[in-house]
Amino acid sequence: MDRTHATSGERPGEPAIVTEADRRARRIADTLLAREGTGPAWNLAIEEARMGYARVAMTLTPAMLNGYGTAHGGMIFSLADSAFAYACNTRNATTVAQSCTIAFIDAGRPGERLVAEARETALRGRTGVYLMTVYGEDGRIVAEMQGLSRTVGGPIVED
Amino acid sequence: MDRTHATSGERPGEPAIVTEADRRARRIADTLLAREGTGPAWNLAIEEARMGYARVAMTLTPAMLNGYGTAHGGMIFSLADSAFAYACNTRNATTVAQSCTIAFIDAGRPGERLVAEARETALRGRTGVYLMTVYGEDGRIVAEMQGLSRTVGGPIVED
Amino acid sequence: MDRTHATSGERPGEPAIVTEADRRARRIADTLLAREGTGPAWNLAIEEARMGYARVAMTLTPAMLNGYGTAHGGMIFSLADSAFAYACNTRNATTVAQSCTIAFIDAGRPGERLVAEARETALRGRTGVYLMTVYGEDGRIVAEMQGLSRTVGGPIVED
Amino acid sequence: MDRTHATSGERPGEPAIVTEADRRARRIADTLLAREGTGPAWNLAIEEARMGYARVAMTLTPAMLNGYGTAHGGMIFSLADSAFAYACNTRNATTVAQSCTIAFIDAGRPGERLVAEARETALRGRTGVYLMTVYGEDGRIVAEMQGLSRTVGGPIVED
Repeated sequence: MDRTHATSGERPGEPAIVTEADRRARRIADTLLAREGTGPAWNLAIEEARMGYARVAMTLTPAMLNGYGTAHGGMIFSLADSAFAYACNTRNATTVAQSCTIAFIDAGRPGERLVAEARETALRGRTGVYLMTVYGEDGRIVAEMQGLSRTVGGPIVED
Repeated sequence: MDRTHATSGERPGEPAIVTEADRRARRIADTLLAREGTGPAWNLAIEEARMGYARVAMTLTPAMLNGYGTAHGGMIFSLADSAFAYACNTRNATTVAQSCTIAFIDAGRPGERLVAEARETALRGRTGVYLMTVYGEDGRIVAEMQGLSRTVGGPIVED
Repeated sequence: MDRTHATSGERPGEPAIVTEADRRARRIADTLLAREGTGPAWNLAIEEARMGYARVAMTLTPAMLNGYGTAHGGMIFSLADSAFAYACNTRNATTVAQSCTIAFIDAGRPGERLVAEARETALRGRTGVYLMTVYGEDGRIVAEMQGLSRTVGGPIVED
Repeated sequence: MDRTHATSGERPGEPAIVTEADRRARRIADTLLAREGTGPAWNLAIEEARMGYARVAMTLTPAMLNGYGTAHGGMIFSLADSAFAYACNTRNATTVAQSCTIAFIDAGRPGERLVAEARETALRGRTGVYLMTVYGEDGRIVAEMQGLSRTVGGPIVED
């Protein structure tokens, strides 16, 4: 399996270059999270946000479990969708999800800290495509999501 | 627009015939909901459940809102996914979601009571396809979801 | 299973009312098909087209089969996508597919005449959602597709 | 945009190591293509196939164009779906597509040679997830597809 999706996008041995745009991307993600009612409810933590990329963590509480005692699909989606939102807004133009397809691969366990990584894979005009991968603590893939975004508005933060 | 999706499946003027299987379908849905940690967290109410069909309501609290003050996509998905789960388990064989595609059509408003309707549209062997529609209080469509299910286990309730 | 998807949309016993808009919808579909290079290649036949609805047939030739001697997924998609195109353009405003999700349910057999039915399930502004079902000759479901459309241009035929 | 999807999977400067399994993967892809009626109809060329990966080319003929004189969505899907099939069968266990989501990003031009690249992004038991990207001759992205596969049978070629 191609493991490039498990990394944060840099090639091994290559130093990460953080640009001004990347720093703004982080400010945008923090701004969005701060406005969300779901942020504290889900106790989301943004691990990283830069141009076209975001990585977000969430720890599974009992209120997030389904009838089998594992992560409810809705919460796996919610985590991936949050990473999607932070990634597709990093260009500082208000962008919304149009549609998402999620494939559920493995269960999320009670108390487990899941991490969702969102990466831009295509962008043309107002339309973007993003790939989200949700990982368990041991690095296994819990879900894969493809998201289609549409840019609809103005800036989120001041430049 | 074809409005058959807005009804509960019966034709106008036709009396609804509730079979033993439909009554069991309701017991299954109630059983599943009772086991879920998310049930009380989301305050879900099953309005109807019968063979291959479920309708579930959820009222949008502040903890379910995104940064625009409308329903977070994750919560719209969670409601639709719950209706999907109750519908695809109505045959009393443990069935899970494999993948879902959701299209976001309109915003859900703070305090609004959303209703998700799930209908079986295809079934072959262990594979099922379900169509979920999420409605706002005024009947407008908030989201449409297609779900692919897989039957993986035994009965949920005793016959 | 809810069989409303197998009908052409009318309720049994209800006479179909064909409006001027429906007649224009048919002209639009015929116009689109006549322009397509794929139309003769796939030997598509439009069985019906009216507001928000289209039904299209295609007979499986050897050049449409996969390595198992059944319909290639690409051809099942192509048929469903054609019905989608004719249905989402019936309002006489140029509309394109943004994304599609197809679930493959059953095989299409050599020489079989497949029929794809497209129905509008949601419409808001420039965005539409359509449900396509592909049937085999015996009425079994071969595939289900959900399509997201976007209206991008002007009229296709004169009013 | 993350350009790792535009490469064939190797890191720059890393020599490609071709294993026995990779050689078998190529034999499998060639075997599948040779059995398909669509192969000659679409004039597909397998550029590369190795474990969990395939890259396939197709040149757009007039019979592949839609009413706008660009690649029909059905043909873009068919190319991506072919790459998906060759990639998900590279482990020499018969595997089929369960569902696919395709996002259409840009038009394919008459006479243009499109290339679809398929990469495995998740695998667990009989279920796999694949990401397909369709490129135009100038490297622009024409479409992105996510596919869900299921392994259903025995070997395709002798070991």
